[in-house]
Amino acid sequence: MQPIKVYADRRSQPSRAVIIFCRVNQIDFEEITVDLFKSQHLTAEFRKINPTGQVPAIVDGRFKLYESHAILRYLASVFPGVADHWYPADLFTRAKIESILDWHHSNLRRGAATLVMHTALAPFLGLATSPDAVKQAEKLLMQSLGRIESVWLKDDAKFLLGSPQPSIADLSLVCEIMQLEILGNYVRDRFLGAHEKILIWMDNVKKATSPHFEEAHELLFQVKASRLNNAAAANQTSEPSTKLKIVSKL
Amino acid sequence: MQPIKVYADRRSQPSRAVIIFCRVNQIDFEEITVDLFKSQHLTAEFRKINPTGQVPAIVDGRFKLYESHAILRYLASVFPGVADHWYPADLFTRAKIESILDWHHSNLRRGAATLVMHTALAPFLGLATSPDAVKQAEKLLMQSLGRIESVWLKDDAKFLLGSPQPSIADLSLVCEIMQLEILGNYVRDRFLGAHEKILIWMDNVKKATSPHFEEAHELLFQVKASRLNNAAAANQTSEPSTKLKIVSKL
Repeated sequence: MQPIKVYADRRSQPSRAVIIFCRVNQIDFEEITVDLFKSQHLTAEFRKINPTGQVPAIVDGRFKLYESHAILRYLASVFPGVADHWYPADLFTRAKIESILDWHHSNLRRGAATLVMHTALAPFLGLATSPDAVKQAEKLLMQSLGRIESVWLKDDAKFLLGSPQPSIADLSLVCEIMQLEILGNYVRDRFLGAHEKILIWMDNVKKATSPHFEEAHELLFQVKASRLNNAAAANQTSEPSTKLKIVSKL
Repeated sequence: MQPIKVYADRRSQPSRAVIIFCRVNQIDFEEITVDLFKSQHLTAEFRKINPTGQVPAIVDGRFKLYESHAILRYLASVFPGVADHWYPADLFTRAKIESILDWHHSNLRRGAATLVMHTALAPFLGLATSPDAVKQAEKLLMQSLGRIESVWLKDDAKFLLGSPQPSIADLSLVCEIMQLEILGNYVRDRFLGAHEKILIWMDNVKKATSPHFEEAHELLFQVKASRLNNAAAANQTSEPSTKLKIVSKL
């Protein structure tokens, strides 16, 4: 069978989620890099794949699809080798996972992605930043992390909803939180340090998808290192000497 | 069979989508009003139904669910009387609908809901408004309307994706756009006036779900009238004499 095509930039968190999902489930795919920093997502050629100009997108034969959650649902549904726990056939369990996937967009993603965009990426992309937007994003991110812990990681839950195995919601949300790495250890720990359950859960998702999780995140850590080097060169390190003494489990 | 419970405030667009869906598909339900203006969504009692404190939410026997898209998927899946076009079993068609539902959160909904919140609702709810946020929301709303028209309502599409019948995506998106009514005819037409395909599509969804569509929107039009009356009383009408000569099809 012809491999599917995955259009992705591994610096994008939903791109990584789709790549990890394919690798873990042995879905044969060809990865086509769409470099966001070179605006390749805005080319006429890519618009033929995804008219909204975002990654990830997939092409399966003649079928084109975008939006990472829709892609994950589709892959889990059409590839018979995908284990049920990723997107359970049971309608009640599935509905609870759908609820988290939907919540994600206007809460965790909106908070985390807006924060990363306005602090780390905007200067590179030549976009305007807004202190108001950063403040709102930080508040929403903090609130979202608290919500995940108190609602979906109750007691000794290994994965969301107390499942013994991860679902596509675990993968999507953890890839989103991983994006905070770009902000440096100090900022990352400022958000995650108080959330031990989140750190344990992230580690569980990482282990359940290893070594693909680490491999898909290599580029993110390269970007992080490059940002720190640039900051150090400019004598403006983003790692203040008073940083929290928290050992990250990421 | 025991009716499901629908916790809703009809001034909330996703609440209306769920109510209309139940009525059209003859799903027996008890509607429990959660008055957002009285902060009833933030009570300990409602948090037992939905810990995220948002409407709509449903209770089906012992099963609780929130997030409107997850609710619509669930209802379409568990009630055998729901026609297939609302949430098609065909995986390819379903995936395309999922893609729109996911896109909605960070685009049309984020644009429209932020605009309505920062202009019409914030003064009532005692919330701070931000001119920056309004500007961003207007831009996102305009872009989203253009995207719907150029991507999903191509040619003479009656419903999204050229379907001859509506899906849960049509219902969700149209209920969102209806929320612009609260801003008055002038502002509504400023956004929708240039989008004839959108107006025709909205009318198609309305007709396909009539008279439940109109009934579920009655309260919205009462709120609109009340806002206009208050503005007139304060001699600060939001309907300038230079308003666009556009006959709304809503």
